[in-house]
Amino acid sequence: MKTDIQIAQEAKLQHIGEVAKQLSISEDDLEFYGKYKAKLSDDLWDKIKDRKDGKLVLVTAINPTPAGEGKTTTTVGLGQALGRMNIKSVIALREPSLGPCFGIKGGAAGGGYAQVVPMEDLNLHFTGDFHAITSANNLLAAMLDNHIHQGNTLSIDPNQIVWKRCVDMNDRVLRNIVVGLGRKADGVVREDHFVISVASEIMAVLCLAKNMEDLKKRLGEIVVAYTYEGKPVKAKELNAVGAMAALLKDALKPNLIQTIENTPAIIHGGPFANIAHGCNSVIATKMALKLADVVVTEAGFGADLGAEKFLDIKCRTAGLKPDAVVLVATLRALKYNGGLLKTELSAENLDALKKGIVNLEKHIENLQKFGVPVIVALNRFVTDTSAEIEFVKNFCIERDCEFSLCEVWEKGGEGGIDLASKLLKTLEEKESNYRPLYGLELSIKEKIETIAKEIYGADKVTYDPAADMAIKKIEELGYGNLPVCMAKNQYSLSDDPKKLGRPSGFSINIREAYVSAGAGFVVAITGTMMTMPGLPKVPAAEGIDVNEEGRIVGLF
Amino acid sequence: MKTDIQIAQEAKLQHIGEVAKQLSISEDDLEFYGKYKAKLSDDLWDKIKDRKDGKLVLVTAINPTPAGEGKTTTTVGLGQALGRMNIKSVIALREPSLGPCFGIKGGAAGGGYAQVVPMEDLNLHFTGDFHAITSANNLLAAMLDNHIHQGNTLSIDPNQIVWKRCVDMNDRVLRNIVVGLGRKADGVVREDHFVISVASEIMAVLCLAKNMEDLKKRLGEIVVAYTYEGKPVKAKELNAVGAMAALLKDALKPNLIQTIENTPAIIHGGPFANIAHGCNSVIATKMALKLADVVVTEAGFGADLGAEKFLDIKCRTAGLKPDAVVLVATLRALKYNGGLLKTELSAENLDALKKGIVNLEKHIENLQKFGVPVIVALNRFVTDTSAEIEFVKNFCIERDCEFSLCEVWEKGGEGGIDLASKLLKTLEEKESNYRPLYGLELSIKEKIETIAKEIYGADKVTYDPAADMAIKKIEELGYGNLPVCMAKNQYSLSDDPKKLGRPSGFSINIREAYVSAGAGFVVAITGTMMTMPGLPKVPAAEGIDVNEEGRIVGLF
Repeated sequence: MKTDIQIAQEAKLQHIGEVAKQLSISEDDLEFYGKYKAKLSDDLWDKIKDRKDGKLVLVTAINPTPAGEGKTTTTVGLGQALGRMNIKSVIALREPSLGPCFGIKGGAAGGGYAQVVPMEDLNLHFTGDFHAITSANNLLAAMLDNHIHQGNTLSIDPNQIVWKRCVDMNDRVLRNIVVGLGRKADGVVREDHFVISVASEIMAVLCLAKNMEDLKKRLGEIVVAYTYEGKPVKAKELNAVGAMAALLKDALKPNLIQTIENTPAIIHGGPFANIAHGCNSVIATKMALKLADVVVTEAGFGADLGAEKFLDIKCRTAGLKPDAVVLVATLRALKYNGGLLKTELSAENLDALKKGIVNLEKHIENLQKFGVPVIVALNRFVTDTSAEIEFVKNFCIERDCEFSLCEVWEKGGEGGIDLASKLLKTLEEKESNYRPLYGLELSIKEKIETIAKEIYGADKVTYDPAADMAIKKIEELGYGNLPVCMAKNQYSLSDDPKKLGRPSGFSINIREAYVSAGAGFVVAITGTMMTMPGLPKVPAAEGIDVNEEGRIVGLF
Repeated sequence: MKTDIQIAQEAKLQHIGEVAKQLSISEDDLEFYGKYKAKLSDDLWDKIKDRKDGKLVLVTAINPTPAGEGKTTTTVGLGQALGRMNIKSVIALREPSLGPCFGIKGGAAGGGYAQVVPMEDLNLHFTGDFHAITSANNLLAAMLDNHIHQGNTLSIDPNQIVWKRCVDMNDRVLRNIVVGLGRKADGVVREDHFVISVASEIMAVLCLAKNMEDLKKRLGEIVVAYTYEGKPVKAKELNAVGAMAALLKDALKPNLIQTIENTPAIIHGGPFANIAHGCNSVIATKMALKLADVVVTEAGFGADLGAEKFLDIKCRTAGLKPDAVVLVATLRALKYNGGLLKTELSAENLDALKKGIVNLEKHIENLQKFGVPVIVALNRFVTDTSAEIEFVKNFCIERDCEFSLCEVWEKGGEGGIDLASKLLKTLEEKESNYRPLYGLELSIKEKIETIAKEIYGADKVTYDPAADMAIKKIEELGYGNLPVCMAKNQYSLSDDPKKLGRPSGFSINIREAYVSAGAGFVVAITGTMMTMPGLPKVPAAEGIDVNEEGRIVGLF
């Protein structure tokens, strides 16, 4: 069997100028990065902004399991299928992070015969967007420490600095560090922390900004520290906004690449789905909606995290109205939710399936609360039996969901024709009555409790004293009207990753809260959140190489 | 008067495909990065490698002073002048570092009417080469710390780690840090240091590598640490080479841009000129020599550092044979060397000039020791008087140097026609008998002493005990046959930056020495070397912005 990178490298890529023609984009509006990548120019938006929007489709999934669900693969395959049906469509995805490629997972751009390419570029430096974000993040940090070193006229309390440095690398020793050691000329000593670049607030800011003006406004609002008197210090007070904007000027432009079937794919931005909102950029999504009749996009982790944030944060902030949601599941993952071990998933087991399908059920109910039609896409594995498939199909239909069996991993776009047809039928026949789950006028705790009870199924929410104080302070500072971005483990609807299926009778504990004032949300943290991964015993990096023909190998 | 960025932004740029045509490069051999930047593909080398080389011209300067010499400006202007004379020529320069743009100096790409463009791109992310180097550097660091965390089978002594993390930012608090704090899962606690990315050995490795195979070999040889028994640990033992090579795959390809007069400019690599060799990449220089009849390149700082390393390290390592050297000076800088204050430089002062010209004299003598013809380019300022100019002219002619008065800053290529003519005359009439200053078979101390006495004019060399021990160990480990890369302040021929002119009766003290085994040289350090700059009280970043028309302003 071929590896993903082999399939990707064998794909017959079109020159990106040709791909752009599918969307009636002229070469003048492209900025090429080699033959197979391009940025969409600022001028393009001015030319297309008055067009009618296409349909917006979100792909999300049940809670992720070690069995694999294939959310990105389904997104890509669905786009490929729409392309085969001559529907003018675009896939709008996040850019993958560089660091994790060298850890456990290798690359991330779909899988099998449903991939975006060139996958090596996408997984490594791509068009440099993440490097620009890293640079802007670290410029702000350097200017902050320099301000303190040069006299600290803003009275910044070195013990209340909340801005962290970042690097796009899995590097655990940078989680907790002390900087500024040495002589007087070497700066002020303090505790500091690095996060992985995708966890930088600048990533979230870039992804929620409407344009350069809005980007600068949001960058300026970022709270970097507090004064000795407890007043927030913003990035604009450090005069860092213009230089950060200059660093981000090109990164703000969406990137166009293609699938292995030459379907256009706009790939832009990639915020974490725990401490941030986990979707591609607003600019990319809006541009895609002007360029295509159907835009297929994706949100991180399961629907309880990614879809909730897509619907409550991104769509609300950007004024987007989603038309349908595709909810991805696999029989293997549902049986895993039903209590089976990873080794037991290949055999037919209707009992485990019945026990585990409650996870899917809860996500269907949740998505329906937002008023958006839901289509369940069951990603087929060779071991799936027809009795099992039939069971899931009926389960979905009883819940007013379209159901589709998907084979895009194995068959590419052809394996997604059924899903694409059901999607088009849904878009035609079912109206979306999209509404966010909660009103922004609610208190922060009311918002947290709405999400915890309505989406997670919790009975109640408890707060650590630190979180209590933080929420009080956030509201005092005038940030109480922001939406809430929940940072929770992705494996369970609860805050305990071991509680699979549809847990009930649990409470959610909020350990910590802080404001991401530039991004425009309040982050509420349950459990411990990892914002800087580490490398495993044998890092994937050890298997990556450039071979004698100059091709990258081992990135899978 | 217009600022550099204004002149640059007003330049009529050609599409880079047009610029490439001047060198008979077809579009197939270009990888576009937008309309005005391109990488030269790997295939291009195969097509041109059997051609005859063009002439190689190095531009260097007297010791830098606060008065300014204009070395890069002269390099660019000379290229522009050759272009106006219909000579097939290429400028081969280093890429500027991102970090310092936000500190004191703004951008760096020549000045006035002798600049390479697009200057905003060049000074910010350009084609991402430095980001790739930063990533490769930090991947190696992460793999090193991960190795220790995962059991340390190589017995690496955490107190003898020599590999440092890097960031392309002026950030003094990262000079001395402690990493790995926290819990067991957060890695092993140790002292660590960040350097600015251009000081990374990977930068030097990339610039000295002949091709991908050689790059991988050099990456593997990098010494990252020593074991408890004092044995060197190399990057290849951490299995980090392939992944670093994958990160550097595109960065290894030279970049093509243009001057404001549309002369082709190949810009690639940018190692420090103190702890590294300070010239653009070997790959770029070799490619330029196959593409043009005259290649004008540059080395960092004054001729005592940059030119010496270009001639003793780069040319020797790469088998290059320079045909002429242009030595840049200004009357202001010579008078500053003669003891005047910065405020006194505008008035005619032949006494100060006579006193200061000994700096130029020493550099002429030094360059002649390498057997290469020397042309002195005097960069004209409006305050220069004809008596002063005449004096320098006669001084040069007496020393068998061509002399040219240059006005490229004000007049662009036209102001460099005289210099270009003198250069062409020299290339035609004078033969280069290039030879390195010292043989590699000498001991490390003999090499250091040869450079110190012959080039700097020192009477003797002293060694701190630590340097003594380090040199002994380097030779024991088998690195004694490498060339020596001297890290010395750039302002004086001596190791005391205050001793201007042509100091004598001084000794050079070697404080420290280490091997850069991947790059292939031994670094000998005099005084304190800054490998991580800091930001000033008012960083240049505060004046940088993106204006309402989307243009970058304040980068000058």
